[in-house]
Amino acid sequence: MTETTNIKAYGTAAAEAPLNPMDISRRIPTAHDVQIEIQYCGVCHSDLHTAKNEWHGTIYPCVPGHEIVGKIVRVGDHVSKFKVGDTVGVGCIVDSCRECQYCQEGLEQYCEPGMTGTYNSPDKYLGTPTFGGYSESVVVDENYVLRIPENLDLAATAPLLCAGITTYSPLRHWNVGPGHKVGIVGIGGLGHMGIKIAKAMGAHVVAFTTSESKFAEAKRLGADEVVLSKDEDQMAAYKGKLNFILDAVSAEHDINAYLNLLRVDGSLALVGAPENPLPVAAFSLIMGRKSFAGSMIGGIAETQEMLDFCGEHNIVSDIEMIDMQQINVAYERLLKGDVKYRFVIDMASI
Amino acid sequence: MTETTNIKAYGTAAAEAPLNPMDISRRIPTAHDVQIEIQYCGVCHSDLHTAKNEWHGTIYPCVPGHEIVGKIVRVGDHVSKFKVGDTVGVGCIVDSCRECQYCQEGLEQYCEPGMTGTYNSPDKYLGTPTFGGYSESVVVDENYVLRIPENLDLAATAPLLCAGITTYSPLRHWNVGPGHKVGIVGIGGLGHMGIKIAKAMGAHVVAFTTSESKFAEAKRLGADEVVLSKDEDQMAAYKGKLNFILDAVSAEHDINAYLNLLRVDGSLALVGAPENPLPVAAFSLIMGRKSFAGSMIGGIAETQEMLDFCGEHNIVSDIEMIDMQQINVAYERLLKGDVKYRFVIDMASI
Repeated sequence: MTETTNIKAYGTAAAEAPLNPMDISRRIPTAHDVQIEIQYCGVCHSDLHTAKNEWHGTIYPCVPGHEIVGKIVRVGDHVSKFKVGDTVGVGCIVDSCRECQYCQEGLEQYCEPGMTGTYNSPDKYLGTPTFGGYSESVVVDENYVLRIPENLDLAATAPLLCAGITTYSPLRHWNVGPGHKVGIVGIGGLGHMGIKIAKAMGAHVVAFTTSESKFAEAKRLGADEVVLSKDEDQMAAYKGKLNFILDAVSAEHDINAYLNLLRVDGSLALVGAPENPLPVAAFSLIMGRKSFAGSMIGGIAETQEMLDFCGEHNIVSDIEMIDMQQINVAYERLLKGDVKYRFVIDMASI
Repeated sequence: MTETTNIKAYGTAAAEAPLNPMDISRRIPTAHDVQIEIQYCGVCHSDLHTAKNEWHGTIYPCVPGHEIVGKIVRVGDHVSKFKVGDTVGVGCIVDSCRECQYCQEGLEQYCEPGMTGTYNSPDKYLGTPTFGGYSESVVVDENYVLRIPENLDLAATAPLLCAGITTYSPLRHWNVGPGHKVGIVGIGGLGHMGIKIAKAMGAHVVAFTTSESKFAEAKRLGADEVVLSKDEDQMAAYKGKLNFILDAVSAEHDINAYLNLLRVDGSLALVGAPENPLPVAAFSLIMGRKSFAGSMIGGIAETQEMLDFCGEHNIVSDIEMIDMQQINVAYERLLKGDVKYRFVIDMASI
């Protein structure tokens, strides 16, 4: 039987219930585990979707949180990669089968039998769902733990573990770099990271927004140009001009209008998850051999690569710090898009 | 002023009118032109769409036909690639700007100012629309003329000029070859070529059809396996198994059901052109970094490569030969999908 200890967390008991304090069990670190005292945890839109069962399949009680940073306070007997006192991070993945082709290629996020998500996944040790980072501490196999660059502000680094890798991975996969014109659609939690990272990769960044009020912000974040997406003339000026588009919009929007802006052989990668299917015209793809693609977070090695890249380029998220007790209000503001650009919970407040 | 001569053709004067005999003008070959006596012309679904103005923008009178094979009967003073008596082909492209990046990369089909289509495009010489292969002869710049392998049946080679390259190009672009499981959706004019070519490229070919009656046919054409696409159990057995899917269906169909069959990083390339936008679920793409892509014919050099490949592998289209006078009946049968698998007009009948 796996030994456990009880710790404090914040979670929800039902789709309609607010988040409340609760006690949860964590296993005592086994041979390859590290125990991390959580200092900060970012608030991702997926947390809200899952807490409210909007993607269905939520098992209650549910403790969200997969943008975790903290300090190692205990290590298992065979841990070789980390030691007590190390500052580390945990993202969306805490385990995977480790044997399928995708795991072996470092694509744990696409693990064939299914990765173990940081929350709401079957916990291999306890038989309960996994519980996320809205909690005092977490116990994770060292192979799924990331090293945090020392030069980065720790609280503002937390969102890199999901928002950062979600945007870095497709930008890297589709070879964004110098000489490329890259569109970033949507300037929110994901999009603001996309702008910073694409710019640091050397691309010419064109940000697309539905609101003129975000123009100055987009430029401050690093965009070379900003386009008002509801202005047809502004959109037409970019027809066939972009090598790649990162689409970080979760609301309904016209994908064809953006496919139209791609060069021949260009790709648009969706990282937001609009609820309803998006209508795609055949000619939007056929004329110019274009691709409408999707991408989900990134593997463990790539997440480390992203953190190191952000360390080198001094990239963190723009954040608003909250106390754990403010989470329900933060969710309400998140629903309205009222955050610049990511809430991060100071876990000392728990 | 460009000198012209009158020739016999078959065309239509209005969207609702049948095709009828008509005289059209062809230019006398200029320095880089060859004049081709047309022996056979394939009947592509695009011919019908254009004749009936279903894609709008048809200029009447309209003479369709872009799967042309025949013999060179006259060459311009500076023609260096061909001589009188050569057996040659002309596909969908008779000219392009030759200067844009895409033309210079051999992607004339995506020419930035727009390629000159074999029919219904502005004719650079005469100011009329271009007239296609439902005619006695055609005059084309030698740079847009293809050499036909001697070992292939000439009539059955005609459809390679559109149906062949439309399927070959994406199969090549997405690197289909040995070790790949490739899905071909739809067993019609395009799909039957897709099966033959993918098989010759060394892939393991899985054909998808809505009709059990096509199982034996699909195997005869070269499919290793055939799946009844309306049977959910049969479809489920291929979940996550295919490296690439060539989708040759022009009717409405569920793209998500096919995206679901792709492996991680797999692409589905659409070469049919369904009239209405296709609804694509975000999760169909995000889970597995999949791409929904499109592809349109192929460039001139690639069309030559395809013909040489078909020569090497003894690949031609399965055809039903008709006389020019039967074209209106053939269009009616085409609308019902009643053809195995391509009509080819014996132009001697004109």
